[in-house]
Amino acid sequence: MMPRVTENRQQFASDNLAGMCPESAYWFNLANASGHVPAYGDDEWTESVCQAMRELFHADCDVYFVFNGTAANSLALASLCQSYHSVICSHVAHVETDECGGPEFFSNGSKLLVAETADGEDAGKLTPEAVEALILKRKDIHYPKPKVVTLTQTTELGTVYTVEQVRAITDAAKAHGLRVHMDGARFANAVAALGCDPADLTWRAGVDVLCFGGTKNGLPVGEAVVFFDRKLSEDFAYRVKQAGQLASKMRFISAPWLGLLEDDTWLANARHANAMARRLYERLQAIPGVEALRAPEANAVFASLPPGTAQRLREQGWSFYEFIAGGGCRFMCAWDTRPESIDAFAVAIAAAV
Amino acid sequence: MMPRVTENRQQFASDNLAGMCPESAYWFNLANASGHVPAYGDDEWTESVCQAMRELFHADCDVYFVFNGTAANSLALASLCQSYHSVICSHVAHVETDECGGPEFFSNGSKLLVAETADGEDAGKLTPEAVEALILKRKDIHYPKPKVVTLTQTTELGTVYTVEQVRAITDAAKAHGLRVHMDGARFANAVAALGCDPADLTWRAGVDVLCFGGTKNGLPVGEAVVFFDRKLSEDFAYRVKQAGQLASKMRFISAPWLGLLEDDTWLANARHANAMARRLYERLQAIPGVEALRAPEANAVFASLPPGTAQRLREQGWSFYEFIAGGGCRFMCAWDTRPESIDAFAVAIAAAV
Amino acid sequence: MMPRVTENRQQFASDNLAGMCPESAYWFNLANASGHVPAYGDDEWTESVCQAMRELFHADCDVYFVFNGTAANSLALASLCQSYHSVICSHVAHVETDECGGPEFFSNGSKLLVAETADGEDAGKLTPEAVEALILKRKDIHYPKPKVVTLTQTTELGTVYTVEQVRAITDAAKAHGLRVHMDGARFANAVAALGCDPADLTWRAGVDVLCFGGTKNGLPVGEAVVFFDRKLSEDFAYRVKQAGQLASKMRFISAPWLGLLEDDTWLANARHANAMARRLYERLQAIPGVEALRAPEANAVFASLPPGTAQRLREQGWSFYEFIAGGGCRFMCAWDTRPESIDAFAVAIAAAV
Amino acid sequence: MMPRVTENRQQFASDNLAGMCPESAYWFNLANASGHVPAYGDDEWTESVCQAMRELFHADCDVYFVFNGTAANSLALASLCQSYHSVICSHVAHVETDECGGPEFFSNGSKLLVAETADGEDAGKLTPEAVEALILKRKDIHYPKPKVVTLTQTTELGTVYTVEQVRAITDAAKAHGLRVHMDGARFANAVAALGCDPADLTWRAGVDVLCFGGTKNGLPVGEAVVFFDRKLSEDFAYRVKQAGQLASKMRFISAPWLGLLEDDTWLANARHANAMARRLYERLQAIPGVEALRAPEANAVFASLPPGTAQRLREQGWSFYEFIAGGGCRFMCAWDTRPESIDAFAVAIAAAV
Repeated sequence: MMPRVTENRQQFASDNLAGMCPESAYWFNLANASGHVPAYGDDEWTESVCQAMRELFHADCDVYFVFNGTAANSLALASLCQSYHSVICSHVAHVETDECGGPEFFSNGSKLLVAETADGEDAGKLTPEAVEALILKRKDIHYPKPKVVTLTQTTELGTVYTVEQVRAITDAAKAHGLRVHMDGARFANAVAALGCDPADLTWRAGVDVLCFGGTKNGLPVGEAVVFFDRKLSEDFAYRVKQAGQLASKMRFISAPWLGLLEDDTWLANARHANAMARRLYERLQAIPGVEALRAPEANAVFASLPPGTAQRLREQGWSFYEFIAGGGCRFMCAWDTRPESIDAFAVAIAAAV
Repeated sequence: MMPRVTENRQQFASDNLAGMCPESAYWFNLANASGHVPAYGDDEWTESVCQAMRELFHADCDVYFVFNGTAANSLALASLCQSYHSVICSHVAHVETDECGGPEFFSNGSKLLVAETADGEDAGKLTPEAVEALILKRKDIHYPKPKVVTLTQTTELGTVYTVEQVRAITDAAKAHGLRVHMDGARFANAVAALGCDPADLTWRAGVDVLCFGGTKNGLPVGEAVVFFDRKLSEDFAYRVKQAGQLASKMRFISAPWLGLLEDDTWLANARHANAMARRLYERLQAIPGVEALRAPEANAVFASLPPGTAQRLREQGWSFYEFIAGGGCRFMCAWDTRPESIDAFAVAIAAAV
Repeated sequence: MMPRVTENRQQFASDNLAGMCPESAYWFNLANASGHVPAYGDDEWTESVCQAMRELFHADCDVYFVFNGTAANSLALASLCQSYHSVICSHVAHVETDECGGPEFFSNGSKLLVAETADGEDAGKLTPEAVEALILKRKDIHYPKPKVVTLTQTTELGTVYTVEQVRAITDAAKAHGLRVHMDGARFANAVAALGCDPADLTWRAGVDVLCFGGTKNGLPVGEAVVFFDRKLSEDFAYRVKQAGQLASKMRFISAPWLGLLEDDTWLANARHANAMARRLYERLQAIPGVEALRAPEANAVFASLPPGTAQRLREQGWSFYEFIAGGGCRFMCAWDTRPESIDAFAVAIAAAV
Repeated sequence: MMPRVTENRQQFASDNLAGMCPESAYWFNLANASGHVPAYGDDEWTESVCQAMRELFHADCDVYFVFNGTAANSLALASLCQSYHSVICSHVAHVETDECGGPEFFSNGSKLLVAETADGEDAGKLTPEAVEALILKRKDIHYPKPKVVTLTQTTELGTVYTVEQVRAITDAAKAHGLRVHMDGARFANAVAALGCDPADLTWRAGVDVLCFGGTKNGLPVGEAVVFFDRKLSEDFAYRVKQAGQLASKMRFISAPWLGLLEDDTWLANARHANAMARRLYERLQAIPGVEALRAPEANAVFASLPPGTAQRLREQGWSFYEFIAGGGCRFMCAWDTRPESIDAFAVAIAAAV
């Protein structure tokens, strides 16, 4: 029996529940129409996307396409350190909490050093002070030497580093010889929120390598690893190949990026998701007993629901992420989340409270 | 400037130059039409494919979807041995020659022990004698202990193991406590060539794990790892996740398999490719100076061209694989190779001789 | 210019500042007198030590000799889990804080999950509740699956798990299918403190693998990895060899253990070190302004010194370990620490206060 | 029951059957007499040996002490390449045949590319042509990129590279950007055979890193890793620590080197072993039916014995290494091999023929 093809109810568990956006679907299928195409990225589609990326970032960056975020982050980090080095991240960083030890595996043992982060409007963000404290904590060879700082943009708590905040962290890192990696699974949402130039938020602010997320922005599969310093990407193509991240029919991974980059669809998708989060936030404000933890900066809303509410919503088939330590919920909006889905969800919450 | 969308000339460098077949494209796009779908494989599409696989193999096998063949083979092998064990393969095995050390990387150092193989009609095949000789070669702890035999079906030289040949090798392996892995990047072509039941060629013949190739058979991206012994796949889902091989939007990896499995499209695709190789072989027979190394059993034709011929063909834009040690060429046919492409290529070869 | 050969002042930085005890030196040199001896452990000395270990533990345990504690712990842990598994330890565990990522390296990426521990008399000890909380914290494949609990005996904070406490932890671990490893760098000091049978503190209490420390107890180099369950040590000899931990002239690593095990020298050495710690503790009690954090159970004294004291002692050439977060110091006593060294140090502290 | 302490009959299986030489034993025990000494190499003994090494090599080299040859070679190679690189070695290289995949493990998957070597007087030696052929064999990312050449001095077949031969190989390597490692498990025997300056045979001939063997030359345990280019040893101390190769009581590993280096005992030991091999070779020449494969250049004699002879010698308790593929035997002489042992063995062989 084959799965049903009617469209499912829109959910809020993650922005990776959404499918691919029409623009990426268009190019995916167009790439297929080319018949025989050179394999492993030696094709025109891939070259076009790389060129478009360079234009986007106003830089001669070196771009690689891999299959998912765990691989993008892990390979990028592994290229910046050795097994006896360490990587500084926040305590909620995806690389620490949700990649099943991927960074440790790809680097053959690099340790993640976890910094606590503040609550409030800067929740989930590293601070230069915390970064420096971890760098200086140990100087002996019995502890892995810090070599990389990784920050997630937008953060896992839905906040957005300003350009100045990114710069402050990269300054702290570079003062001690560390490299800086940005986990940009939702980089598009951050750029949309800040309204800045992507270059200003990355290499001009001291970021060495960006993992530019495509999947959550509307691709079917795939992330880009963007090296702004080509010395750091020496032989990275071999690393990608060995790690099982080189697509033979690469056009199907790269071409859909044309749909995102052409006409700034990536920004439009992100802006829409951000707006939907804002809409949900506003709806929640009107429901007694529901307490939003902070105003959404990007496409995530964090709120606390009265006891039993989450349970009732789940029973009605709603899907979202609930934190173990009670009450707090995360609602993610995607590029395709419709206003009426927001409204229907808000009504359901109000009824369940 | 965007890549051209007219269809390119069909080529013979590899069967991964072809795009996706209409049936897999159909399901790929259908899966997209479902809107929001649970991530990481917890969806109906993926469950349907797994169920279809179990029916295909008449077995309660455990099925995982990963992004490419390097990952499929490397993860499967890593699950069968430890870093201080070794893996027996043929000297032309893809895991040895074309995965950039992927198996060694994923297993954290397992050594590949390479067996020479015969020429002639069994070219590229392991023999029970060669396998046993490698198993018995060393018994001391200064050399990695053999733990797995891997065989490629169809082989890298285009030959096809018979069911009896597979059984002979698995018997040799199991007599010494080794496990057996089948690299089935072109498993479909082998089944099509033999006209046998997939179960007879795998678990009934002693194969523990099959990497079932989808990409070369008509998928855009993705291979299946099929464990016939569920004890061997314990925690394999964690392994896949950590290794960056778990797709968040899994439906795009799994649903296209429905296109292959429904109505035995996978077999039809393979039979067609095999037939095209046979057609090319027959055309080459008629060209003086061209010597086919053996009659094709599946979708690869190996032939020796007169000096200078390959060079001239390349200059005319033909793409194929040429062996370093002179003269020998490999021509691969794909699920979409057209008879007229074969004929045009044969005409070009005849003219270039 | 060659180093001086007069005996240095005794210090308190670590029990690994001491040399080898006369008994182990005796056997070391005796082993040398045998002339040609089979390599890699296939010798009588090594067999004798293994047999003595089996008698000591009243068990048919499988014993391996490696060069140091990092290797012993890392190899033992790696043999109990895969890269996508995790290891539960205390936040002060040596494997977490002082092995430069060794466990992560040898296991190819296993994550250490760190449990906070209590202050007070059980400082530094895991509790069954904390262990179970970590086991249950996450059940999804995005986080490494807990597979091992490791406890350090004596703990890094100088406390000693009772037999009942060990049992409570192994019960919690085994209720969830986890294995238990004991880092016994100072196992001798614990047995001396408890006055129990070594078997009661290990396998009879549910410990699967013990790293039995020899270096701090009076050996020049070397630790023993003791598997109480031989199923867990399958092919461990290969693991040791591959990891560069197999001594060719093994007798020099194994024979000195005869000096420790014969006539219970290991216990006498440990009892002496423990007694010296008690003596130091009593001396410190008499110094106004110095506050011992707890009565020593084994050979470590933890105390808080008035501001500036530590600095003055260092200037006088005294060596000990000072915690970053101010004031707290660790004083370790060794198998060879002399009462007059204790007294001299106490006098120096009193003067420096 | 304790092992016997009478001296065993001298054997010829390996030069690691011998114990430690008196000079290294002297310093080993002298180091013990110092009482408390700083741990982890921060001691005068270690500093003295490093200084002596620098004088020996007339270079400001960076020196590390590790426990055995597998670790020395594997760590050195890992420091020169990444997992997706490859290491060129001879087909008889110890790293390929007798380290149980250690190099692959420590480098997380680097592949060894094996060059066939000639027979005759250059048996076991790499040639510049073979090295270059492997470098040029593949240039695509599907195969690990060659990054290091490793040569063994003396070779595993007992031959000795001349200074010119080393230079020819390092020239070939460096012309293509590769680094050069020398496995010097028997470096002393090579220097003794050539009568050259150690600097001429290493860095002046283009060697980047030397693993200087101590164990076979008369130490109880330990090898030195000597970096002639300090850029290559950046953070190597961390690598050693993480890999479980940092001795806490380092003086016991380093001090015995003083015994070797003082008064050129290392050379005297090697010369003696070489002379004993020459003596054995001459004795074998006189035995009908015994055919020495080549005149010994260092401390190994390779000879072919008539059928059944090896078996009879073994039954009489003689120990030596016999090649699987019939007849060929290896007889190793050590720093302590006595002339009368040679003569007795020759008599036994003559009787067994």
